[in-house]
Amino acid sequence: MHNFTYHNPVQIIFGADTISQLAQLIPQSSRILLTYGQGSILRNGVYQQVKKALSKHTVLEFAGLEANPRYETCLKAVQLCRREWVDFILAVGGGSVLDGSKFIAAATVFEGDPWAIPTRQAEIAQAVPLGCVLTLPATGSEMNGFSVISREETKEKYGFASPHIYPRFAILDPSTTFSLDHRQIANGIVDTFVHVTEQYITRPAQAPLQDRQAEAILSTLLEEAEKVWQQPHDYAVRANLMWCATQGLNGLLGCGVPQDWATHLIGHELTALYGLDHGQSLAVVLPGVWQFNIENKREKLSQYARRVWQLSAPSASDLAATAIDKTEQFFRSLGVKTRLSEYGIGAEAPRAVAKRLQERQMFLGEAANLGGTEIEAILTMRL
Amino acid sequence: MHNFTYHNPVQIIFGADTISQLAQLIPQSSRILLTYGQGSILRNGVYQQVKKALSKHTVLEFAGLEANPRYETCLKAVQLCRREWVDFILAVGGGSVLDGSKFIAAATVFEGDPWAIPTRQAEIAQAVPLGCVLTLPATGSEMNGFSVISREETKEKYGFASPHIYPRFAILDPSTTFSLDHRQIANGIVDTFVHVTEQYITRPAQAPLQDRQAEAILSTLLEEAEKVWQQPHDYAVRANLMWCATQGLNGLLGCGVPQDWATHLIGHELTALYGLDHGQSLAVVLPGVWQFNIENKREKLSQYARRVWQLSAPSASDLAATAIDKTEQFFRSLGVKTRLSEYGIGAEAPRAVAKRLQERQMFLGEAANLGGTEIEAILTMRL
Repeated sequence: MHNFTYHNPVQIIFGADTISQLAQLIPQSSRILLTYGQGSILRNGVYQQVKKALSKHTVLEFAGLEANPRYETCLKAVQLCRREWVDFILAVGGGSVLDGSKFIAAATVFEGDPWAIPTRQAEIAQAVPLGCVLTLPATGSEMNGFSVISREETKEKYGFASPHIYPRFAILDPSTTFSLDHRQIANGIVDTFVHVTEQYITRPAQAPLQDRQAEAILSTLLEEAEKVWQQPHDYAVRANLMWCATQGLNGLLGCGVPQDWATHLIGHELTALYGLDHGQSLAVVLPGVWQFNIENKREKLSQYARRVWQLSAPSASDLAATAIDKTEQFFRSLGVKTRLSEYGIGAEAPRAVAKRLQERQMFLGEAANLGGTEIEAILTMRL
Repeated sequence: MHNFTYHNPVQIIFGADTISQLAQLIPQSSRILLTYGQGSILRNGVYQQVKKALSKHTVLEFAGLEANPRYETCLKAVQLCRREWVDFILAVGGGSVLDGSKFIAAATVFEGDPWAIPTRQAEIAQAVPLGCVLTLPATGSEMNGFSVISREETKEKYGFASPHIYPRFAILDPSTTFSLDHRQIANGIVDTFVHVTEQYITRPAQAPLQDRQAEAILSTLLEEAEKVWQQPHDYAVRANLMWCATQGLNGLLGCGVPQDWATHLIGHELTALYGLDHGQSLAVVLPGVWQFNIENKREKLSQYARRVWQLSAPSASDLAATAIDKTEQFFRSLGVKTRLSEYGIGAEAPRAVAKRLQERQMFLGEAANLGGTEIEAILTMRL
């Protein structure tokens, strides 16, 4: 096990009818900016619950944060925060609303060009305090200090991190997720699944507890994913999917072990260039990264095959290959397509994506062995 | 899944050669009280590492905290803290040193009789900031807001909790545990194991992730416990045992599920009255609590049998009974005896323990079905 530090100060409030606790969670003297997305919270009643809870607070609003929140949109909210002396940001929605709000929180009090935050990992010395009401389990952003921002103008999508952008609290009411559509649920399951595998399917590191904590989430996801379509009104299923998503990327699984993240970084480029949903991009890329790195990942893939898929086979290589197939079939069973061509993306894409990562001199994966040539090869396998 | 809140702000610094980070973790202007136990940290070099790291800090010392830290001893440290204007407490040792230091931290700034903290759960409005260097994996106290204190004069042992007694940081260097003796390691494994089962072997709550997170720790403990005797110099084994102990009682496993704690509460009385080590008391009591409550716990015991012990049997009742046997055998394989008579405790004990819990009008277990009569019956089975 490698040395590590772990520090996650987010207060989780989990359960039905918890949104009313907002009144106690945010100081009444605060000038709050309520941020949200495209208006689904107006239709499912979450907006009304939030406003009712904050009826004695001063609440400004900023609507319109997109899936893959745009830098350009966030800057408008930054101007509003500065002009109106906003001192608390409440993000209500999914991971995109939250990621956008994290950027807004940091950029509002940032000196200099805020584009340096995602592109040059400029140090964030402070941020406006932030809380969230999560309505879509997927990104894990509710319990971490990460954010991913897209710039429409240049078709770029980058992540950044800071201890200052941890939410002070996250309200997770699983009943808010009943109004999600099939595609949102499926994408969320894929996203959670791949967050876990990025921290687990690498090379062994004598960290058996972390391995099993990862397998715990993957096994639970497989079970609950099957139920969510058959029992769409089952609260427990929604609760379990939501807790899996939060636990999948709160830093715990990555303690003391190698991490991959190639699938995410390649996927971000597919989203930035071709508009794939984040979950779709991961479902396309993951089998390719695993196949390409099957030698390095053989031991972990075999363990995953045995423990999560209950497979047995005469050799570790059989198990590893079968585990990759099973995973792709699982994504497809959710209705998420796994080939570039199925999204209308052609043979020029592998080179285009590889070029962009190459220009940033990036070598991806736990072994840092995936440069431009390798990334092109991986995506060519995924056409 | 029940509604829950989870908020654990402890910063974990895990790994070899991390004690030197103390210099940065504690403000240099602090007046630190370094608390420790019976002097093992002088012999294994941890004291010297701590003092070297804090060579530019003001450090007072208080030695002599006992296993099952005594109220009477802690009060002496409280006087020292008040007299010397101590504004940071650094606990260096195992869970007892840390629990004692948590009490000292709260009592130093408590108005009124501090015995009300453990006995009447008096509200703790503040505490002196606290950090720790852990040298014995067992109690999980390094990442929680709990403490257990004993009063020698009256042979009492009580727990208390407060968000103010979470350590600000916990340094966990597994190499500090190489100097532990067999009994300390074995007791620590039992303690960790039972922390997990108190949150897991109850009744099903449609919380499959929490179940698997519990099983992850139990399975890892079984594996690593076998290795620790065969490979006593293996760093990874020590690291895994240490991380299991911390993860076993940091609040995560108990999120949204019923909890038992009968074994701990009965065990505390055995320690207070007869001086059993904490781990020994748990090893004695646990099989009795499970046997007595086997109907209520059948489903979880069977799941535990299948998943942790890889057992299969025709009926759930067979599985549950076998799981209880296996668990007792596991404790015995560590060298921890599991019968009262093996500790020289006689037939008067069941009534004596039951009477004390009855006087406090306590009904124990996740079903609150264990009053005086039932506790006496449980301990009679454990003679």
